[in-house]
Amino acid sequence: MKVATSLKELGEARRPMKDPVGLVTTMGFLHEGHLSLVRRAKSECASVAVSIFVNPTQFGPSEDLVDYPRDLERDTLMLEDEKIDLLWTPSAEQLYPDGFQTWVTVENLSQPLEGAQRPGHFRGVSTIVTKLLVAVRPDRVYVGQKDAQQAQVIRRLVKDLNIPGEVVICPIMREPDGLAMSSRNAFLGQEERKAATILYRALTSAAEGHAAGEHGADALRLIMYETLLSEPLAKTQYVSVADPETLEEQWGSVDSALLSLAVFVGKTRLIDNVLVGPR
Amino acid sequence: MKVATSLKELGEARRPMKDPVGLVTTMGFLHEGHLSLVRRAKSECASVAVSIFVNPTQFGPSEDLVDYPRDLERDTLMLEDEKIDLLWTPSAEQLYPDGFQTWVTVENLSQPLEGAQRPGHFRGVSTIVTKLLVAVRPDRVYVGQKDAQQAQVIRRLVKDLNIPGEVVICPIMREPDGLAMSSRNAFLGQEERKAATILYRALTSAAEGHAAGEHGADALRLIMYETLLSEPLAKTQYVSVADPETLEEQWGSVDSALLSLAVFVGKTRLIDNVLVGPR
Repeated sequence: MKVATSLKELGEARRPMKDPVGLVTTMGFLHEGHLSLVRRAKSECASVAVSIFVNPTQFGPSEDLVDYPRDLERDTLMLEDEKIDLLWTPSAEQLYPDGFQTWVTVENLSQPLEGAQRPGHFRGVSTIVTKLLVAVRPDRVYVGQKDAQQAQVIRRLVKDLNIPGEVVICPIMREPDGLAMSSRNAFLGQEERKAATILYRALTSAAEGHAAGEHGADALRLIMYETLLSEPLAKTQYVSVADPETLEEQWGSVDSALLSLAVFVGKTRLIDNVLVGPR
Repeated sequence: MKVATSLKELGEARRPMKDPVGLVTTMGFLHEGHLSLVRRAKSECASVAVSIFVNPTQFGPSEDLVDYPRDLERDTLMLEDEKIDLLWTPSAEQLYPDGFQTWVTVENLSQPLEGAQRPGHFRGVSTIVTKLLVAVRPDRVYVGQKDAQQAQVIRRLVKDLNIPGEVVICPIMREPDGLAMSSRNAFLGQEERKAATILYRALTSAAEGHAAGEHGADALRLIMYETLLSEPLAKTQYVSVADPETLEEQWGSVDSALLSLAVFVGKTRLIDNVLVGPR
């Protein structure tokens, strides 16, 4: 496994990589969710690159940029075990040079859900992902369904900017009790960790309702709200029943939908989602 | 010379091109100004690609998109004569697919001068140039100093998005009487064509003033204004004495500066500029 830091090192390490090249972009503090993307990339590509970069521009001023968990040494060992070809750990100084002022925005898809709660978040995501894709030029980039809106934003910008390569969206990895894997789970205390299972329970309650014939978007949102209310440590930020592609909030009866939610458990903000209905 | 229309054809034509690859991005209706970029690219690169695309997103609703001069047949013959390797004439349908919503913006540099007069113009320019650069992956892209602000915007976005390749800014080509070459000169009637020389005369008056020791930004603007006032067919939109790199308007004494102006001659809007002082 080669490790590149500068863009120059990246360019030199990229050149001899065999096609097709798969890329997994991460903010580090890797867990099984990340590794599932890496393994999928390994199974489909001749060579695999992983980037680790905690991108400052996608964090709001009151968010957890400084506290975001980091362990590059452990991440490096985990990726060596996966036998990837290239680990790129760029510096903020090089990705955001003095006088930086160029932003990539995906307009409509960035507005609802996470975008409404985290102003500027997707501008930061779209900009860094464009930069990483332009620098690495992968044939396939693997992203997780865990960040469902991010996945749609990336798919859209790749199409709109004619960036070569395919966006592969991979399923959410969960702990045995259903909690979606996330680097931020590390923030949870013991009681909070137990309480955090309420997110997936709320989603599955609504999904089961949908499967049983309850297709009213309001009714599905209500199921999620009420389930979340049953957990005193959970504070709901939003629940949503949205179109899986446009992410527009749905009203009336829904056939296919993205059920998603954002919930504070203590001070930790968690998100999760499930897709219901035919694809 | 290969001619590509679709992105697929472009990809196939790009692959065998010898490094370094030079790119000249144009909106067609080629003149000696464009050809000077092509010849510079030919002299410095192993292969040269030219794109012709009248980019709708950089025109305002009241601007001249529909009337913008076009002559693809003549352009093609001119480029064959220059022995370029690849002509790419993409379609708007492919560059702006259904649901298009991703924009590249260069914030500060897009605000003054042309940006102030043409809202959204540089968003359109930045977006299309990013797309062309991502698709063609040139080692060098050649742009004209005629569009001085555009050149700075492109230089900045290439740096900020870590797009590989160098931006080469080439000097303005002028008619014997000093009029800067522009596809829009084709709109000028006979009287207007004569009157249009006032732009360069205004710039050279100010530049001569600067060389003779008049470094006051206000005084230099006044020289340009007064010269332009002497031509009844000319209607000044702005004159500017700006920092050549940040494009911020200057006040007080200036050492180096970009003198620029936008002037309507009849219904045709013309721009021009000169750099004064040490580089």
